[in-house]
Amino acid sequence: MIYFDNAATTRPDSDALARAAEFTTELYFNPSAKYGGGFSVSKKLEKMREELLGTVGGKDRYDLIFTSCGSESDNQAIFCGGKRGNVVTTQGEHAAVFSACTELKNRGVEPRFAPVKGDGSVDIDALLSLVDEKTSLVSVIHVNNETGAVNDVAAIAKAVKKKNPRTLFMSDGVQAYGKLNFVLPTEIDLYSVSAHKIGGLKGTGALFKRKGLALNPYIYGGGQEGGARSGTENTFGIAVFAYAAEKKFRTLKEDAERLRSLREKLFSLLQGDIFTRISPKDGSPYILTVSAAGMRGEVLQRMLWDRGLCVGTGSACSSKNRFSRVMTACGYPQSILDGVLRLSFSPETTEGEITEAANILNKTAKEYIRNTF
Amino acid sequence: MIYFDNAATTRPDSDALARAAEFTTELYFNPSAKYGGGFSVSKKLEKMREELLGTVGGKDRYDLIFTSCGSESDNQAIFCGGKRGNVVTTQGEHAAVFSACTELKNRGVEPRFAPVKGDGSVDIDALLSLVDEKTSLVSVIHVNNETGAVNDVAAIAKAVKKKNPRTLFMSDGVQAYGKLNFVLPTEIDLYSVSAHKIGGLKGTGALFKRKGLALNPYIYGGGQEGGARSGTENTFGIAVFAYAAEKKFRTLKEDAERLRSLREKLFSLLQGDIFTRISPKDGSPYILTVSAAGMRGEVLQRMLWDRGLCVGTGSACSSKNRFSRVMTACGYPQSILDGVLRLSFSPETTEGEITEAANILNKTAKEYIRNTF
Repeated sequence: MIYFDNAATTRPDSDALARAAEFTTELYFNPSAKYGGGFSVSKKLEKMREELLGTVGGKDRYDLIFTSCGSESDNQAIFCGGKRGNVVTTQGEHAAVFSACTELKNRGVEPRFAPVKGDGSVDIDALLSLVDEKTSLVSVIHVNNETGAVNDVAAIAKAVKKKNPRTLFMSDGVQAYGKLNFVLPTEIDLYSVSAHKIGGLKGTGALFKRKGLALNPYIYGGGQEGGARSGTENTFGIAVFAYAAEKKFRTLKEDAERLRSLREKLFSLLQGDIFTRISPKDGSPYILTVSAAGMRGEVLQRMLWDRGLCVGTGSACSSKNRFSRVMTACGYPQSILDGVLRLSFSPETTEGEITEAANILNKTAKEYIRNTF
Repeated sequence: MIYFDNAATTRPDSDALARAAEFTTELYFNPSAKYGGGFSVSKKLEKMREELLGTVGGKDRYDLIFTSCGSESDNQAIFCGGKRGNVVTTQGEHAAVFSACTELKNRGVEPRFAPVKGDGSVDIDALLSLVDEKTSLVSVIHVNNETGAVNDVAAIAKAVKKKNPRTLFMSDGVQAYGKLNFVLPTEIDLYSVSAHKIGGLKGTGALFKRKGLALNPYIYGGGQEGGARSGTENTFGIAVFAYAAEKKFRTLKEDAERLRSLREKLFSLLQGDIFTRISPKDGSPYILTVSAAGMRGEVLQRMLWDRGLCVGTGSACSSKNRFSRVMTACGYPQSILDGVLRLSFSPETTEGEITEAANILNKTAKEYIRNTF
């Protein structure tokens, strides 16, 4: 099976799992416990926190709040950061940001959604025009999870702060973290990430928070995470996350370069009269979204699965409606929207898989056409 | 090392870990994915959900929302269940309920705290007197995590509903689930549990919700868990939880009986002039809280650790203040509050450990006295 749905979730890294296993055996203690075992776990936890902070610019500039997933990180950032006036975000956000912003209406805060361009990246001028003196938070996704388009969140954050220095800037970095070469600029106050997109386990996430920024907790209780997030820390999940991240960051630049060239190779091998490219060339090297216009993506997806190729359609996280909300906002006609396939890679992706996947895609699409039309 | 801090966290069950391992290897797919791999994971997830629902009275009567921990379950129940008027709870709650209720003040809902008796159980008449026509939610902990006192939440829920049938009743079942023989009565609308107190992993919890009760999500996003809790499901953690629970429930009654007798044996072996009993006889068999009056619990705790016995003091989840909030509410004098030790067991606890622990406790306390006074 060729697994090209790494943007939905990745296979957990076996080295990271093995290294972290001690937290399920001898180091199972509660990190809040005030005896040797608790101290050992807590010390290791703080070391992992520091190492993860090192990946975004260091512990002197940012704090890290361990959460249970990217969605929780997004929810904390939005509900605790966007408490007044209006919150500006984009039509290209992941559901965790989009739905949380929509819910803000019920809490007396006005959500404003900036339009996106054809590749899913935000229209920056339109976004900035929505920011005013009452904007408490702006949230822009770093890498669009459906198209791979990269928003220049560093520049956008700077422009937002120029317009209103009191506005918090948050970015959902779930598809960027551990994949793009990126250090958090101080203009980004909050940055949410997820472990299971880079070889960690589902159920572990984090929220990077600019040092000195006061943010309410979203989950109240025992006061773990310096009061920022209660609940006994998921020590095993955190360790798998930290070790998987360590590995990813070690070869991040080479992986990105290699995958960018593999992505282009894959697209060049796809039959041009069948597959329309959606992902921009300067998008994430980890995502190639195409559309087999006129076909049904989910039918194609199941046929591909039966032939040994696993791909995504829209975001795996939200599949109630026929058309993807984000892809619809990109302005595509119905025929294109129907046929969307998202091919997403990992550092383990090989050139052989790319060639084989292209073959399977071409053959399966032709078969689909023969059977249907 | 004799581990008697199982109320803080348990050593993950190795059988459950081994059985669940497939979710980190071949079954790593996103359960929302619409292809074979996703369907397999999702099917297994639903089977585990059903089995867990079977432990509290069945899927026809309750739904189960998978969350990241007991604290998250508590927060969802309180913030989404207690939206209007006042919320009545007790002075004996875990911090996750207590702090969430305290926070309600900032959200326009009045929290009311009923006093507890000396063993930590709630004063039921006082609680009921706080319930009025504006009470949207009542929350009573099932087993007090610091003393082991059991609140008869079935009877309390019934009495609350009699006073105001529109009031939701929620109970924090974290220290009861998998330990007490208990089926949820329909008067209990919401019941929160945690995996890592019964051999599961930290980072997994659940909220049982009465069938038909509409409850807002606390984490918004992709609409997982039937819309009740977004975020990719922590499949591995959920599986470890389900398998650990299966094991616990299989021998629940025998374990409880055996531990009740071991708990009594342990107390009978403790030197009566040193240790004062706090836990009631009819409390959870899993918890024996005592106080070495006049000594400092945390000093004793570290001495015990060095001598091979691991015990808790107050709740491991909240240790900022010198005295436990809950134990203070029980009305103990300072000398008793200082010396609190919580000994908490698991089905793996042996009679040999009980005898040895009593020896260590007696010897260490005497040593403490010799060195201090």
